[in-house]
Amino acid sequence: MKKLINDATAVVGDSLAGFELAHSDLIRVDRQLNVVYRLDAPVTGKVGLVSGGGSGHEPLHAGFVGHGMLDAACAGAVFTSPTPDQIVAATRTVDGGAGILHLVKNYTGDIMNFEMAAELAAAEADVRVEAVVIDDDVAVQDSLYTAGRRGVGLTVLAEKIAGAAAEAGADLDAVAAIARRVNANGRSMGIALTGCTPPEKGSPIFELGDDEMEVGIGIHGEPGRERRPLAPASQVAELLVEPILADLDYRGAEIIAFVNGLGATPLIELYLMYAEVERIVSAAGARIVRSLVGPYITSLEMAGCSVTLLRADDELIKLWDAPVATPGLRRGM
Amino acid sequence: MKKLINDATAVVGDSLAGFELAHSDLIRVDRQLNVVYRLDAPVTGKVGLVSGGGSGHEPLHAGFVGHGMLDAACAGAVFTSPTPDQIVAATRTVDGGAGILHLVKNYTGDIMNFEMAAELAAAEADVRVEAVVIDDDVAVQDSLYTAGRRGVGLTVLAEKIAGAAAEAGADLDAVAAIARRVNANGRSMGIALTGCTPPEKGSPIFELGDDEMEVGIGIHGEPGRERRPLAPASQVAELLVEPILADLDYRGAEIIAFVNGLGATPLIELYLMYAEVERIVSAAGARIVRSLVGPYITSLEMAGCSVTLLRADDELIKLWDAPVATPGLRRGM
Repeated sequence: MKKLINDATAVVGDSLAGFELAHSDLIRVDRQLNVVYRLDAPVTGKVGLVSGGGSGHEPLHAGFVGHGMLDAACAGAVFTSPTPDQIVAATRTVDGGAGILHLVKNYTGDIMNFEMAAELAAAEADVRVEAVVIDDDVAVQDSLYTAGRRGVGLTVLAEKIAGAAAEAGADLDAVAAIARRVNANGRSMGIALTGCTPPEKGSPIFELGDDEMEVGIGIHGEPGRERRPLAPASQVAELLVEPILADLDYRGAEIIAFVNGLGATPLIELYLMYAEVERIVSAAGARIVRSLVGPYITSLEMAGCSVTLLRADDELIKLWDAPVATPGLRRGM
Repeated sequence: MKKLINDATAVVGDSLAGFELAHSDLIRVDRQLNVVYRLDAPVTGKVGLVSGGGSGHEPLHAGFVGHGMLDAACAGAVFTSPTPDQIVAATRTVDGGAGILHLVKNYTGDIMNFEMAAELAAAEADVRVEAVVIDDDVAVQDSLYTAGRRGVGLTVLAEKIAGAAAEAGADLDAVAAIARRVNANGRSMGIALTGCTPPEKGSPIFELGDDEMEVGIGIHGEPGRERRPLAPASQVAELLVEPILADLDYRGAEIIAFVNGLGATPLIELYLMYAEVERIVSAAGARIVRSLVGPYITSLEMAGCSVTLLRADDELIKLWDAPVATPGLRRGM
C-alpha cells in the first residue's frame, strides 16, 4: 500500500482539514463530525440539500458543497456509510425553514442511516425531510451492499440539477420531484482495470489479471457482470453504453453524458472514451447536448471509468447550465 | 499495459476528438495539426498566448485554452515536444495584432521548436513573438531532457496569471513581464510513488519497489534527487517544501500554493498533503492566501504529487482571481 497519508485510521479527518484550508472561501467543516457545510448555510427560505456517503469517492460529496449544489455533505469512513448523528446534525444545521432533501445513493447502510436521521430530525427539531434514492447502475440488480441497483455516477448530476432547482427557489416537493426525474431518466455502468486499496484495509479489495477488466464494477469494488480480457476502448464503450441503451429508451432524446474516471485513469483516456460514447449514442438516434468528463465520483486509485447518460428535457438542461460554485464543480460565477 | 485506448499510435488524436466534442462551447481543435484553439481566437487587439508540450500531462495544456488563459495549445505526441509547424500555425492563427507570448516549459526540444517557430512566424507573417521559459523545478539542476531546471507545476499558474493579464488588455511586454515575474517567484518539487506507461512504449518508464518513492521526480519520469523508503505524508511534505523554501526567500510572503496530483493519487490524499504543506509554510513565516489542489499537470497514471509555491503580490493575486473559462479551470464566468 503506497499512499500519501500519515495514519490510516485518520485519513478522512486529515484530508478534510486540508479541504477546509483550501476552500475556506466556499465551505466550512465540522471537524468533530466530519460534515462539510456551505459557507452561508443555512440559507433562509431555501430548500436544504444534504448528501453524503463513504469517503474515497472524492470529489463526491464534499466537493459538491456550495452555491447551486449541496448545503451539506456527511463524510463517512472510507467506503462506509455516514452515521445518523452526522446526518441529523447536517439536516438541522442547513434547515432554512423550507425543508431538507436527502440525496441518498442506494446502499443498504446509507438508506438505513439517512432514514433514521430523517426521523430523528423530524422528531427533535420539526424539520421536514424528503429523501430521493439514486439507483442508476444497470450492471447488476442486487449487489454486495445493495438491495436493488447501486447508486453511482448519476448522483453527481442529481446533486447539480436538484441543487440548481433549490437555488432557484423551488419548494421541497418540487426539488424532490426534479431529483426523482433525474433518477428516472438516468442510467450508468462502469468498468475497472485495477482494484483499489482502502487505507485501513491495507490490501486491494480485489485483484485483476494483467489482461483483465471487470465489466459492471461497483464504486466499492463490488463485482459486476463479468470479468473478461481487456478490449479496445471502442469495445469497452459498447460494453458500457449498450446495457444503458437497452434499459431505457433514449431514442430521439437530448442527453447529458458523463464519462467519469474512477481514479487512476488519465484524462487523455477519458476524452478518448467520450468520443466512443458519443459515436454509439449518435448511432442509436440520440444526441448529446451537454457533457461532463473527468474524475467526479471515484473509487480511490482504481483505474477505469463509468458512463452515465441522462435523458434530459429543457428544464433539466437549464438547471444543469445554472451557475455553480463548489470546490469540485464551478461554472458561471 | 492496461489502458482505455484503441491504437497506441493514435491516442493523442483520438483523445482530442473527444475533447473537442466535449468542449465545443469553449474550444475548437485543428485535427490535422493537433492544435487546440480558443473558440473566439484571434481576439483583435489582445496579446495571444500560445503554449504546448508533450501530451500525457492533461489537463495541461489543452485544458487551459479559453477565456482568461491560453489562446492556443499545441499537443505533441505523448511526452514529446510539439513540432515547429504546429507552433507556427498556432502563433499565426491567434495573432490579433498585439503580438504573441510563447509560454514554454524548459525542455530542450520544446525550447528549440518554440524558438524555430517564433523565427518562422516573424519571417513569414511579421508576427511579434516573445517567449517566457518556465523552469521552476528545484529538484535537479540539469535533467534527462533539460539544460537547467525543468518546467513543471508553475506552468499552470503562469498560464492563468499571464492569461488574465492579456485578457485585461496588457501589451506584449507587460504580459511577458508578468509571466517572468511568476517564474522568478515560484518554485516546485515533486515525488513519485509509481512509474507510468506511455502508450507507444507499452512498459513503465521506470519502476519503484513496493516501499520506495522517487523524491524530485520529473513529469516524464526523469530521476529526482534520491530514491528512498516511503514515508508518512508529513515527512513527504517536508521533503518537497523544504528544498523550495531553501531556494527562495518566502519569509513574510503571501503565497499561492498548488498541490498537484501526478495522475493516480486520489484527491483524499492531495488534500491531506495540502494540510501538511500549509503547516510547514506557516511555520516558515509565510502565509498561503490562494490555493489550487488537484491533478492539473499530470504524468499519465503516475502516482505521486508535486508542490508549487508562488510568492505573490497584489497584482498577481488579482490576476489569479480574474475570471477564467477553460475546460480544465473555470471560475467567475
